Amino acid sequence: MTLINENYLKLQAGYLFPEIGRRVRAYKAKNPNAKIISLGIGDVTQPLPPAIIEAMHRAVDEMSHGETFHGYDDSGLGYEFLRNTIVENDFKSRGVELDIDEVIVSDGAKCDTANMQEIFSPDNIIAVTDPVYPVYVDSNVMAGRTGQPNKNGQYDKIIYMPCTAENNFVPRLPNAAVDIIYLCFPNNPTGAVATKDKLAEWIDYAHNNKAVILFDAAYEAFITEPDIPHSIYEVEGAKEVAIEFRSFSKTAGFTGVRCAYSVIPKQLKAYTKDDRAIELSPLWKRRHCTKFNGVSYITQVGAAAVYTPEGKKQNQEIIDIYMNNAALIRESLTKFGYQVYGGCNAPYIWMKTPDDVGSWDFFDRLLTKANIICTPGVGFGSAGEDYVRLTAFAQPDSIKEAMNRFADV
Amino acid sequence: MTLINENYLKLQAGYLFPEIGRRVRAYKAKNPNAKIISLGIGDVTQPLPPAIIEAMHRAVDEMSHGETFHGYDDSGLGYEFLRNTIVENDFKSRGVELDIDEVIVSDGAKCDTANMQEIFSPDNIIAVTDPVYPVYVDSNVMAGRTGQPNKNGQYDKIIYMPCTAENNFVPRLPNAAVDIIYLCFPNNPTGAVATKDKLAEWIDYAHNNKAVILFDAAYEAFITEPDIPHSIYEVEGAKEVAIEFRSFSKTAGFTGVRCAYSVIPKQLKAYTKDDRAIELSPLWKRRHCTKFNGVSYITQVGAAAVYTPEGKKQNQEIIDIYMNNAALIRESLTKFGYQVYGGCNAPYIWMKTPDDVGSWDFFDRLLTKANIICTPGVGFGSAGEDYVRLTAFAQPDSIKEAMNRFADV
Repeated sequence: MTLINENYLKLQAGYLFPEIGRRVRAYKAKNPNAKIISLGIGDVTQPLPPAIIEAMHRAVDEMSHGETFHGYDDSGLGYEFLRNTIVENDFKSRGVELDIDEVIVSDGAKCDTANMQEIFSPDNIIAVTDPVYPVYVDSNVMAGRTGQPNKNGQYDKIIYMPCTAENNFVPRLPNAAVDIIYLCFPNNPTGAVATKDKLAEWIDYAHNNKAVILFDAAYEAFITEPDIPHSIYEVEGAKEVAIEFRSFSKTAGFTGVRCAYSVIPKQLKAYTKDDRAIELSPLWKRRHCTKFNGVSYITQVGAAAVYTPEGKKQNQEIIDIYMNNAALIRESLTKFGYQVYGGCNAPYIWMKTPDDVGSWDFFDRLLTKANIICTPGVGFGSAGEDYVRLTAFAQPDSIKEAMNRFADV
Repeated sequence: MTLINENYLKLQAGYLFPEIGRRVRAYKAKNPNAKIISLGIGDVTQPLPPAIIEAMHRAVDEMSHGETFHGYDDSGLGYEFLRNTIVENDFKSRGVELDIDEVIVSDGAKCDTANMQEIFSPDNIIAVTDPVYPVYVDSNVMAGRTGQPNKNGQYDKIIYMPCTAENNFVPRLPNAAVDIIYLCFPNNPTGAVATKDKLAEWIDYAHNNKAVILFDAAYEAFITEPDIPHSIYEVEGAKEVAIEFRSFSKTAGFTGVRCAYSVIPKQLKAYTKDDRAIELSPLWKRRHCTKFNGVSYITQVGAAAVYTPEGKKQNQEIIDIYMNNAALIRESLTKFGYQVYGGCNAPYIWMKTPDDVGSWDFFDRLLTKANIICTPGVGFGSAGEDYVRLTAFAQPDSIKEAMNRFADV
């Protein structure tokens, strides 16, 4: 008799965004003329810039001739032309030396952050921030690394680290020893960033506890302040304890094109039960080559074009549009008397709901009174109950209109 | 202390193809002028036909304008335009009624066949054929569903079902009850096909044992004989017991473009330990939406073009090239006195090594004497020890040249 993986039955409700979609569709069905503005799901809206479009056209043409046709990406790890330019531009330029063997290309940071837990024992204790990107938690629930959820939606056996206005949304070190720590800076959903000093505390903790940090840097391109690290490897000692995730989704408009990468330094090890140190990179590569078959050649050519002089310039113009949106949201909401965080080094604004209204209630209020979609903070964890997340990824005109409507809520 | 997933330490050697690559590189380093012909890895060589190229150019252009830009594939399951045409062309045309909700698009059948085991309990007993596509086995080893391998490379707790010339490479039903059965027809590596009657036996077995069949039909487009089923759902009762995997990789030259899909019928259920029947489709969709973020829009537009009248015609011409190659290999090797199987409804020829030479030895002999790369049968399981796999995916001229060289071996 075939048994299911009963860990799946522990999962709560749908994934956050399907539930938002359900409520929006229900509202639209009753109000077909409503002009809805979405500041909800973090999906980009600007088209791909010319440098990337041209590169992808070229790649499509290559696929039409026998001599330049590309089948499987033989290594399964990403073409060297892409990994070379990543190492050069994303790391060497910031003083971080990496070998291309330490960079493994994939079709998304969601996939990488969800799949990375597979190379670790089910017995490890994981720590996540609260609020948190739900994928980190749900992938561990599916793998059986948790117990049942409590009434706040927090799972037994996971260590939750509250991120609040009091700690600037950067968590304190846990009292107990944990094995795997998920950190995301610039943060989704709060927009918070971590200084080098703060990351150094975490790196020390990981060294002292033989822990591994899974560092999600998918939003690094939105950092505007010069002293904020873009990579955890800018901090001494990180290579021995941290895996880093990067994505082209938000930084280059690739949500519909699909490209990302993980960095696993050669120095990084974890342990067998009898305390033998094992390099993690070969384990992840074995997983990658067994369960994945490489990223579309056309996509990889497009991703490499992000690093050309034109690509960088055109892409920065798009990031500037989003960050101007973020500034407008911050300033408008502050003017209206709301308490807001983030939006300086990240495309997300984390807004305190007025009068401690619950975040789904505020979501419904904003949808019905202003026809604006936000993301309820509680969808990211119980510490997000009195917050909502607003994204800066909409068109500038929509952002202006949304702020006008906010004035009337 | 972070512990690794020690199941990974049970895995043997590298994945088959990296090991082939290693031997070929070593030979090339010593013989830089050797003109090597690869009949090894099953990667396509014909360029994409015009209908698909045009569609992908159009999709790239759409990504360059705000009004037609595509970000996330909202459902995460594949665009409806693609799933509709799949249901219509791959199934309805063969008398199989499916709803588009039963079709879930992904970036590869390797990924789907490797990931599907996640929704099942680690306690299930799996059965695989011998020889077998290594991904089915390795993904279960990683998940802890096996013990250690024996000296033949067979893992404890897996039921291996020998496929030999005696049973026409279609396995007999197991004596013991198993929970999950991997079948692949047309078969990789043997090229064998299963008749409706043979599949009906397996479907009966699954009904009687409350088992689930994972049916890999990645090579269905190569079937030439009219009575051979392309889908397991052409056989009565399959919807209650089978998941089917399809791929654009081999059938439409998408190895470098990445598109595939899984079919999970609504009727298909498995069980909790306390014998509650649970629909499998929602579990897979939850996994898909949590750990995956959809297939490139450009790829999906290209995949849909496979089903246009021009796409079908152009694609069939490419399949005909490969199948003519297969016929030439079959006929030549038969003429030279070798015993060969497959190649009629599949792009693979399964060749008995002469004089019971071991398959890695024959691989080395073929590489050094004829500069031809094959795939050692033992790489697919111990029952493949005296066989090698030859693929028909090379250029026709290369196949002719390879057959000339075979005459001299």
